[in-house]
Amino acid sequence: MTQIEFRSDNAAGVAPEILTAIGDANTGTAIAYGADDLTASLEWLIREVFEHPTARVFPVTSGTAANALSLAALCPPWGSVLCHDSAHILQSECGATSMFGGGAVMRGVRGNDFRIQPDTFRAALEAVRWGDPHHSQPAVLSLTQPTDMGTIYSLDEISTLTAIAGERGLRVHLDGARMANAIAALGCSAADVTWRAGVDVVSLGATKNGALSTEAIVTFDDAAADELVYRTKRSGHVTSKMRYQSAQLHAYLTDDLWLRLATNSNRQMTRLAAGLADLGVEFVNRPDVNMLFARMSDDVATELEAAGLLFYRMPGSIRLVTSWQTSDADIDAALDRFRTVCEDAA
Amino acid sequence: MTQIEFRSDNAAGVAPEILTAIGDANTGTAIAYGADDLTASLEWLIREVFEHPTARVFPVTSGTAANALSLAALCPPWGSVLCHDSAHILQSECGATSMFGGGAVMRGVRGNDFRIQPDTFRAALEAVRWGDPHHSQPAVLSLTQPTDMGTIYSLDEISTLTAIAGERGLRVHLDGARMANAIAALGCSAADVTWRAGVDVVSLGATKNGALSTEAIVTFDDAAADELVYRTKRSGHVTSKMRYQSAQLHAYLTDDLWLRLATNSNRQMTRLAAGLADLGVEFVNRPDVNMLFARMSDDVATELEAAGLLFYRMPGSIRLVTSWQTSDADIDAALDRFRTVCEDAA
Amino acid sequence: MTQIEFRSDNAAGVAPEILTAIGDANTGTAIAYGADDLTASLEWLIREVFEHPTARVFPVTSGTAANALSLAALCPPWGSVLCHDSAHILQSECGATSMFGGGAVMRGVRGNDFRIQPDTFRAALEAVRWGDPHHSQPAVLSLTQPTDMGTIYSLDEISTLTAIAGERGLRVHLDGARMANAIAALGCSAADVTWRAGVDVVSLGATKNGALSTEAIVTFDDAAADELVYRTKRSGHVTSKMRYQSAQLHAYLTDDLWLRLATNSNRQMTRLAAGLADLGVEFVNRPDVNMLFARMSDDVATELEAAGLLFYRMPGSIRLVTSWQTSDADIDAALDRFRTVCEDAA
Amino acid sequence: MTQIEFRSDNAAGVAPEILTAIGDANTGTAIAYGADDLTASLEWLIREVFEHPTARVFPVTSGTAANALSLAALCPPWGSVLCHDSAHILQSECGATSMFGGGAVMRGVRGNDFRIQPDTFRAALEAVRWGDPHHSQPAVLSLTQPTDMGTIYSLDEISTLTAIAGERGLRVHLDGARMANAIAALGCSAADVTWRAGVDVVSLGATKNGALSTEAIVTFDDAAADELVYRTKRSGHVTSKMRYQSAQLHAYLTDDLWLRLATNSNRQMTRLAAGLADLGVEFVNRPDVNMLFARMSDDVATELEAAGLLFYRMPGSIRLVTSWQTSDADIDAALDRFRTVCEDAA
Repeated sequence: MTQIEFRSDNAAGVAPEILTAIGDANTGTAIAYGADDLTASLEWLIREVFEHPTARVFPVTSGTAANALSLAALCPPWGSVLCHDSAHILQSECGATSMFGGGAVMRGVRGNDFRIQPDTFRAALEAVRWGDPHHSQPAVLSLTQPTDMGTIYSLDEISTLTAIAGERGLRVHLDGARMANAIAALGCSAADVTWRAGVDVVSLGATKNGALSTEAIVTFDDAAADELVYRTKRSGHVTSKMRYQSAQLHAYLTDDLWLRLATNSNRQMTRLAAGLADLGVEFVNRPDVNMLFARMSDDVATELEAAGLLFYRMPGSIRLVTSWQTSDADIDAALDRFRTVCEDAA
Repeated sequence: MTQIEFRSDNAAGVAPEILTAIGDANTGTAIAYGADDLTASLEWLIREVFEHPTARVFPVTSGTAANALSLAALCPPWGSVLCHDSAHILQSECGATSMFGGGAVMRGVRGNDFRIQPDTFRAALEAVRWGDPHHSQPAVLSLTQPTDMGTIYSLDEISTLTAIAGERGLRVHLDGARMANAIAALGCSAADVTWRAGVDVVSLGATKNGALSTEAIVTFDDAAADELVYRTKRSGHVTSKMRYQSAQLHAYLTDDLWLRLATNSNRQMTRLAAGLADLGVEFVNRPDVNMLFARMSDDVATELEAAGLLFYRMPGSIRLVTSWQTSDADIDAALDRFRTVCEDAA
Repeated sequence: MTQIEFRSDNAAGVAPEILTAIGDANTGTAIAYGADDLTASLEWLIREVFEHPTARVFPVTSGTAANALSLAALCPPWGSVLCHDSAHILQSECGATSMFGGGAVMRGVRGNDFRIQPDTFRAALEAVRWGDPHHSQPAVLSLTQPTDMGTIYSLDEISTLTAIAGERGLRVHLDGARMANAIAALGCSAADVTWRAGVDVVSLGATKNGALSTEAIVTFDDAAADELVYRTKRSGHVTSKMRYQSAQLHAYLTDDLWLRLATNSNRQMTRLAAGLADLGVEFVNRPDVNMLFARMSDDVATELEAAGLLFYRMPGSIRLVTSWQTSDADIDAALDRFRTVCEDAA
Repeated sequence: MTQIEFRSDNAAGVAPEILTAIGDANTGTAIAYGADDLTASLEWLIREVFEHPTARVFPVTSGTAANALSLAALCPPWGSVLCHDSAHILQSECGATSMFGGGAVMRGVRGNDFRIQPDTFRAALEAVRWGDPHHSQPAVLSLTQPTDMGTIYSLDEISTLTAIAGERGLRVHLDGARMANAIAALGCSAADVTWRAGVDVVSLGATKNGALSTEAIVTFDDAAADELVYRTKRSGHVTSKMRYQSAQLHAYLTDDLWLRLATNSNRQMTRLAAGLADLGVEFVNRPDVNMLFARMSDDVATELEAAGLLFYRMPGSIRLVTSWQTSDADIDAALDRFRTVCEDAA
């Protein structure tokens, strides 16, 4: 029986268009460390895609690098980064931001649906003793869009939060490891969900959505960009053969490939969720994009594994993630297996 | 007129065997962050290639990452890393080791031919006030093999230096950004030039020799390896799709591909150097591998550039580097152009 | 009307015995940086007071230094320090531990009475993905004794928590900024509340209890001590005229001066609390030592200030702290003023 | 036979005026962490003494803290601090600047008389690849005045160096661990040797010249000062009982006490040097202030030690330092002993 992959979009392969772009870039020689033509033209492409005349781009090789370097460029060592309690930067990056940020700290903020809310954010800011050096001073708001639990912020919600941040002088980072999925779900532009909504620096994910170890930091803030020139290099995140990453990002952002890939993963999740809802499965989150946390007893989860479904288990629930590679047939087959197991369990 | 590339082996492309390996790895899905089968079997391949039963391997995406993370794992924050005055880690990594190492410092040691010598190394160690906390305590010897100026250490020279290091409790790192070139030139084994000669941790270069943003840290020291599990992750150097890097390293180390590629670049440099010597050009270094620093007046250098030769310029000299991709025809054509320019200049 | 000081024991002066000791040390010359005789003999005194044959001592100049350097010596950069949500190291040191610890992070643990409890501690440990490098790995338990809210752990409670820590390999730090007050309240020995209960390193406070910018790190763990030799120096916490700090610590620990001073502050708080309870004032905490958080309306607090009482205000409560310097007359006068204001308010 | 102290001015005691000031400050209570009146008025005193309307002051407890925190506030993590090869910050602070500076590096510059010279400084700056992120970018010039070898820069020399620094955008730090000695020797004002000569931040030493573990950072640059508010706190260098340090600095800077103390140590050195010159002793340095490095065979040095003279030994030379406490009688007696030993040796 074939296994069906729902562990992570990170488990998916490289999209054919992107693999082709790597091969196409492999002609002749080119100067190293991002001084090549493909990387130069990438900056123009980013400006076009994001509709921002001075945006800058720094290809890096992991989302942790994109996040932690961005945040270090935005936050002084005595500052703090406010993010949701469930944020990847707080829970899953082993203190990368504190390391790169010279001891900057991260503070979790509560909020329903795994999202920071205006009132919880305001309360967090009001509890601060501003200007008192005993206390790390909030300097950055980091929003995860979509969140690590698969929910998204509306454009209005982002604007409201960034406006509150602005009142206190905080700059805004957006962890967009799955940003294409959010844009596809919202039906908005890349500009709408970032700088037009008050975001200064974006971790633009590509790896989970079909690229090969390639992410990018996109800045709308020249002070941060000027720091990132050095911060990326000294952390080993300026690859010598950067042209192969730039080639990927060209392919990714051209002809809306990134949105087409994300639209598939979102659509397959919608189908999967609908099918599971029909089976009476309860959800922990609202599956706005390509991630679903479904309540499932341990016994049923074990049977689902035995049925060839691959997913992550938590106590009382399982995580299901679709990707650019998930097919209609995958979902159909998966729902068949869910049905069989769930009916047996009932 | 076609340009001929001698700026850097970093400017070369990806070797066809390695590009094929990336494509071959792109089937199905696989668990992320190095928990995949290709990465697991890479460790066994490394143990075979290095003839060491407990060697461990950490694929990373840049040489700076390999060096700085290795050194941070070997050196306490109050320690110092001794390296040659000309070493890349001291001159060209923007303080990466000090950052990752919590403020560890690098101390340059003098030596002819861009190599540390037993007497200069001993003198550096004797000048230390051991145990005095006012002074950073030497904790690591880092050797660059081949050096940044294209010279190599003999196996005896390495063993002598690592023995001196051992007397003082220093551990030993080898920056092998071009290690394949050194092995090809020495005609030794990977074990001979590393752990058998007293090396604890190696930055194993692959990118300059045909890989795509892939290097590896190889450890013969479990304490360092245990730290690297965390140090690589929190610095953003554990890529989620690591299997594509592991696939490259498999191809690179299989059937001696790495040595065959390096043998070509060394051989083309030997041909180039012989031709230039015939033209009466003087050399700054002894071109042991694939790098040559040749004395050249500024005027002649400008004419060589006009003749379509690509190289780096320094005051009074130029740097020429061959790669796995340099062909016999490249060298023949280059020597023709050198001959024309030099004869004009004479 | 004289003001009566309840803002902080930090606001108190230097105890006469300690000022005398400084003057007495000011004879002749002595070698700098702690190589003097007074500092050497301090180590023996510490071993006697703590009944531990290999304890070591590092005089420093602030509690933040004592805490952050101790924790950096106990916690690897990828580790985390677990402490109570209200702990000074988490709330009031501006990320010092993260800075000195190379990006180590602090995680708050909940617990009644401002103390970590066995069940909340166990739950925090069980939620960890051990060995997964995405997650900072808990490496240290830091207990504040007494807590920042004036409560204390019993000896059994400490032993229970350190035993749980030990099961997971965590080492234990005790923030003893007011440790003398805890010992005086518990009627135990310095050994009982530290190494006999499973503590590895102590921040031994003296400044709040009558010393002049002098605290000490006391270690029962040689690995931590060996690191502290360098960590204290490179952070600027090895004063050149250390003998004047050592002289203070001699006086502080001789003839139980530290306990006599703390006994006074505890006793005055007991008197104050009893008086306030008689007036019907409600307490936020159980005033185990010399700190009381009392519920007080904003209006009443303002009147108390007008009556010459000095204290810190929080929304709906005030903080009152007694010190070695607080006299019977201070408490009598303070209670008179409380009575007047409270009766007016009633 | 009484021993005569020439090891270090750090070995001297606390000046009586300063000890008195500590005692005088010990009345009543005062709010902690530098919010007290003595600390507030210290800022005004500093502005008067340095004739600078916006100078700010941060009392700290060691010279290493003053230097490393100042430099971290002036230098970005990817920057470098240029200083003389012999500078304390490079040789004797165990990488403190690299730690506090997030991996900033220090680069030694050569120069006769242990001083940076305009040509060696220019050469160091010209060798930099500006704007290339492979290279730490020079951001600060740190001058030691007087140098660690007892020589001083003239006011013109400082101005020349700071002007060169300014051309490249470097800011300027002055390590004034013995600044009073330099001012006394130059007969200039505190303003002349600092901001009027182009200095932005000063480590103002006091401990070696009669204070008790008290130094100060003085800034003429508000951006650095704003950072130091947080940097001093999170490194544990904001003592809670700061008023006792501020009281010392008041006494130190009032009625020229600092200059009177330094004048004595300089004068005693002049007498000692003259006497030694008469005996035919050769000097390694020009004893501009209170430090002399004198050539001395190992045998003679041993005999001098046997004669009760306390000093530091280096191969072939000894270091002699006078202090505020050195008396005419000390020098007379010392010269007698030198004469006896040297005549015996002749």
